[in-house]
Amino acid sequence: MMDIFAAAAASTSGLLALAVALLFAYLNLRQPEGNKRMVEIASAIRSGATTYMKRQYATIWIIALIVAVLLAVFLGIPTAASFILGALCSTLAGVIGMMMAVKSNVRTANAAVKGLGPALSVAFRGGAVMGLSVVGLGAIGISLIYFIFNGDVSPIIGFSFGASLVALFARVGGGIFTKGADVGADLVGKVEKGIPEDDPRNPAVVADNVGDNVGDCAGMGADLFESYAGAIISSMVLGFAVLGYIGAAFPLLVAAAGILASLLGAFFVRAESNPQKALNYGTYISYVLAAILLYLVSTWMVPGEQGLNLFYAALFGLVAGLIIGWTAEYYTSEEYRPVKDIARSAQTGTGTLLISGFGESMMSVVPPVLIVCIAILLAFKFAGMFGIAIAGLGMLTITGIVVAADAYGPISDNAGGIAQMSGLGPNVRKITDSLDSVGNTVKALTKGFAIGSAALTALALISAFYQEAKLQVADLTNPVVLAGIMLGAMLPFMFSSLCMRGVGRTAFDVVEEVRRQWREIKGLSTGRAKADYAKCVDICTRSALRELIAPGLLAISTPIFVGFLLGPAALAGVLAGATASGFALAILMANSGGAWDNAKKYIETGMFGGKGSEAHKAAVVGDTLGDPFKDTAGPALNILIKLMSIVSLVLAPLFTEYALNLI
Amino acid sequence: MMDIFAAAAASTSGLLALAVALLFAYLNLRQPEGNKRMVEIASAIRSGATTYMKRQYATIWIIALIVAVLLAVFLGIPTAASFILGALCSTLAGVIGMMMAVKSNVRTANAAVKGLGPALSVAFRGGAVMGLSVVGLGAIGISLIYFIFNGDVSPIIGFSFGASLVALFARVGGGIFTKGADVGADLVGKVEKGIPEDDPRNPAVVADNVGDNVGDCAGMGADLFESYAGAIISSMVLGFAVLGYIGAAFPLLVAAAGILASLLGAFFVRAESNPQKALNYGTYISYVLAAILLYLVSTWMVPGEQGLNLFYAALFGLVAGLIIGWTAEYYTSEEYRPVKDIARSAQTGTGTLLISGFGESMMSVVPPVLIVCIAILLAFKFAGMFGIAIAGLGMLTITGIVVAADAYGPISDNAGGIAQMSGLGPNVRKITDSLDSVGNTVKALTKGFAIGSAALTALALISAFYQEAKLQVADLTNPVVLAGIMLGAMLPFMFSSLCMRGVGRTAFDVVEEVRRQWREIKGLSTGRAKADYAKCVDICTRSALRELIAPGLLAISTPIFVGFLLGPAALAGVLAGATASGFALAILMANSGGAWDNAKKYIETGMFGGKGSEAHKAAVVGDTLGDPFKDTAGPALNILIKLMSIVSLVLAPLFTEYALNLI
Repeated sequence: MMDIFAAAAASTSGLLALAVALLFAYLNLRQPEGNKRMVEIASAIRSGATTYMKRQYATIWIIALIVAVLLAVFLGIPTAASFILGALCSTLAGVIGMMMAVKSNVRTANAAVKGLGPALSVAFRGGAVMGLSVVGLGAIGISLIYFIFNGDVSPIIGFSFGASLVALFARVGGGIFTKGADVGADLVGKVEKGIPEDDPRNPAVVADNVGDNVGDCAGMGADLFESYAGAIISSMVLGFAVLGYIGAAFPLLVAAAGILASLLGAFFVRAESNPQKALNYGTYISYVLAAILLYLVSTWMVPGEQGLNLFYAALFGLVAGLIIGWTAEYYTSEEYRPVKDIARSAQTGTGTLLISGFGESMMSVVPPVLIVCIAILLAFKFAGMFGIAIAGLGMLTITGIVVAADAYGPISDNAGGIAQMSGLGPNVRKITDSLDSVGNTVKALTKGFAIGSAALTALALISAFYQEAKLQVADLTNPVVLAGIMLGAMLPFMFSSLCMRGVGRTAFDVVEEVRRQWREIKGLSTGRAKADYAKCVDICTRSALRELIAPGLLAISTPIFVGFLLGPAALAGVLAGATASGFALAILMANSGGAWDNAKKYIETGMFGGKGSEAHKAAVVGDTLGDPFKDTAGPALNILIKLMSIVSLVLAPLFTEYALNLI
Repeated sequence: MMDIFAAAAASTSGLLALAVALLFAYLNLRQPEGNKRMVEIASAIRSGATTYMKRQYATIWIIALIVAVLLAVFLGIPTAASFILGALCSTLAGVIGMMMAVKSNVRTANAAVKGLGPALSVAFRGGAVMGLSVVGLGAIGISLIYFIFNGDVSPIIGFSFGASLVALFARVGGGIFTKGADVGADLVGKVEKGIPEDDPRNPAVVADNVGDNVGDCAGMGADLFESYAGAIISSMVLGFAVLGYIGAAFPLLVAAAGILASLLGAFFVRAESNPQKALNYGTYISYVLAAILLYLVSTWMVPGEQGLNLFYAALFGLVAGLIIGWTAEYYTSEEYRPVKDIARSAQTGTGTLLISGFGESMMSVVPPVLIVCIAILLAFKFAGMFGIAIAGLGMLTITGIVVAADAYGPISDNAGGIAQMSGLGPNVRKITDSLDSVGNTVKALTKGFAIGSAALTALALISAFYQEAKLQVADLTNPVVLAGIMLGAMLPFMFSSLCMRGVGRTAFDVVEEVRRQWREIKGLSTGRAKADYAKCVDICTRSALRELIAPGLLAISTPIFVGFLLGPAALAGVLAGATASGFALAILMANSGGAWDNAKKYIETGMFGGKGSEAHKAAVVGDTLGDPFKDTAGPALNILIKLMSIVSLVLAPLFTEYALNLI
């Protein structure tokens, strides 16, 4: 009875989230778009984003259907159906979120004419549509399959795999798209043609703006959708093993509680003067509400000490997410020592800026890893393996508000660009700038949160994999397991290399195309003729899809090969090694990129010589290296560790039966 | 009987190695030093090196004596005595090698007046003294304790710990010294005062030259001495567990075979025209001889199939070392695609050069890790855990010739500097340049070899740790072990950060001192007064010793804390995680540094605009970042993974008895 209630609560709260998303969308779409020039620019960005989404999701669905057939043959129709539903929910969340973002950007710019408050409202509501769609569709989808398969948890794993497949494309492909367009546009625009950033004569400028939405908005959304689904589903698998139907349904109730907390928090985001405070206020309210609701649902659904222990486990995860976000902010915000020191070292040249950046960012790996280790050890101490999964879920309860605050970033960023390009006054620009700078801080926080939750989700998925593979022991004193760890720890480096090279090649394609347009379109260089923006978007899309083949295959095929050739124990080693080193490397990349970016901005405020100084030139180089670190390779590692774990989990029964165990 | 023979063979071949080293030293010291200016410069470098060594070894020995007392109290006198002997042998090898290097540099410069052949002979013999001392003292020391403790393997572990303590100082401290001096000299000289590299008006110039010897010569020697001792001793521990006294003594016979192979190979290094060919010739002869001798000793000492299997295990290690060296060369030599591509990308700016450098170097992690994984899996398949240790030892059999070829590098480098500063003709400079450029290729090879052998040695030490801690199982499905792996994988990042920041602070101290001398010593800027070189050497020495405290404590205290608080299984996880991620990170750092260095040199040959072009400026920045990567943090990781394993191995009996197992 209680389990039916939990699933019903999850789907109801999911529907509620979608209803509020609809309300926010309606409120935003009622807002005027502004003058003709603004409409024109916004429509170019929107049509670019649409082009990208059409081709990306078309590709995804061709592959998804093939995978679904394979799953149906080897693991049965229920798993295949769950897989389709998972991919579908993630696709829907991505499409809704992106459409809303590219409709909210111009309205934010226009609202900024009226003042900060209205502009913040539009931008945040635009982001909240994405955030609420992610958690709403996640909760509805999972509780739906729970009803359909009558509480059987095994097929639900397919849902998580579907979410992972979409995330691979949206996050890795999106990351390659956004930085390929960015670097390509800069190389040929600033370096070769000597025209400023965001100049309409640069045919790649729209692709660059589309990239912001593709990477930060759709990519982050799909990444956290994957974590969210993975955390719920791995908790269900482990919960069923410990507590039967109650344990399988408990995570659904936790998800419902989290959605309520996020929803209520979202209504508290209102700014009169300080957008940072407004966002923080909403987020902290969500945190407090989540903690209270977690206590209530845990002690209500699981009686006695066990319920309390599960609450503690969830709380450790929730608090860990908060602290990880703070440490990411500490290491990447210009308000604290690390970024100031990095900026200072730019005075003695680019070399010292880079050395100092690595020195700080390598240290920034320590706190999040320690916090995650402490969280899982305490969660385990209190509530066993199930506790570890619940800690992951606890961290992700407030996914709704986190994604909302994050998706607000590219909307404000785009609004600033539109205001600039359409010549709105300096007052408007000032407002969009202040929104944007807050967006950057939130971005750093969300990146830390996304990495930490990816690591916890991967650990939960690995635990679920042990369960499904009926793996009794994966012993480190067995060299096959040890070799697995070595191999796994190497994979994030290889994966990052493939992503970085993908960015390089995409940028090169963009450069070629821009050169061609300048050569062939007469009057483009003087601004009399219009550039073919769509062509550049198309090239970035094709190139991104081509470049994600290699990293995608690596992530999917490694567990398959290792699992069948060396067996589940070696695979456990690979997963542990990849998660451990991938987690560390992802933090290093995200934080070094963020720190160099903000060191540059700090210098631009007039420090150490200000814009145009030698220090600034050094900082620009740091930012250029940091860009693909923080926006492509770093976030892509979240996908790597989760995707490998979910592939292992899905195929676990096959490994157990057919593994060759060569060594 | 056979075991006594093996130990006798090891000590005899060790004595033979020392005798040949003595012969080489005698032959070199008979050579003239050249003109007055050369003698003057060489003596400044020599006195700097002596200052450094005196203070470093004095510090080491204060700590060593304290540690020895602790070992005597907690683990008994035999272990403490072995520890002292291990530290002593490593100290002796380091002192002999360094003294020889700083006496051979000027003689190489002078011999270059006569031609390439004589110069190569002097430089290589100088390096060979170091190489032969390392293996000779290692073999003598270990066989000596074997005799003293009558074949009991447990106390011998202390020897390895002694070697590790010295290696920590020589490698980590040396790495901080050399790059602190280098970066500091460049910052204040080239950037601030506008004087060229190696200008005698720069008070830090001698410290910079001393640093080459301290880092590349003494540091690498101590690093490989540690690996060599660790590989022999872990093999003895595991061999005793499998085959009793024969198994414990077998590694000694393998070491004896390796020394013979290196000795014979060293005599084949003679150049008429091409020094690279000469070095390769000697090295490959050593490889072939080692393989033959390994077959003979294995099948003779261990009868039947088991002997053959041990031979295969050793051969896998030997071949793995060779391939790892090649891949390091492929990724860092300007003759192959990666460095050419990196150099090409410098044309579009520093940012693209850095991105492309990381793209290539992250990929360069893949082959060595795969090779080591394959080697340990095959070695295990053929000969069990003992086979893994024997594979590590197999790789290290030819340590003698490897260290010889490596120590040749800084000698040629110094010779070039001396030739330049004392105004020898362009023909002489051409010869020292060609010697030096070969030295750089060898350096890349040796770095790959040092990292690969460190990883294998660490794995062997970890296996020996399981044995000594009587650890039956360290299960990945146990979250304590999993958390250990996460924690372990984070440590190399933290350790690297501490090393990089140490370089930064040392460089800062150097800058301050150079500024002071320019301010206070009248006539220094015009070249009329002499700089106080010794003061800069002294500052680098103090600073290096101060900066290695934090990383050193991290490496030593982590296994102690984890072992006592969480128990041996969690510690096994930490060691596996640290070795796996440290191995990958060390390769990334070594190869990216090497590749940027050679990309710069490739551009200096006139490619992409040549010296002074924008591409060259970009490459200089890459090289500046790469320097502390490849010469400080990267090699320091070798020490981290071995030192943590050896500390765990030494304390294993205490962990088993007193661990609190908190979780």
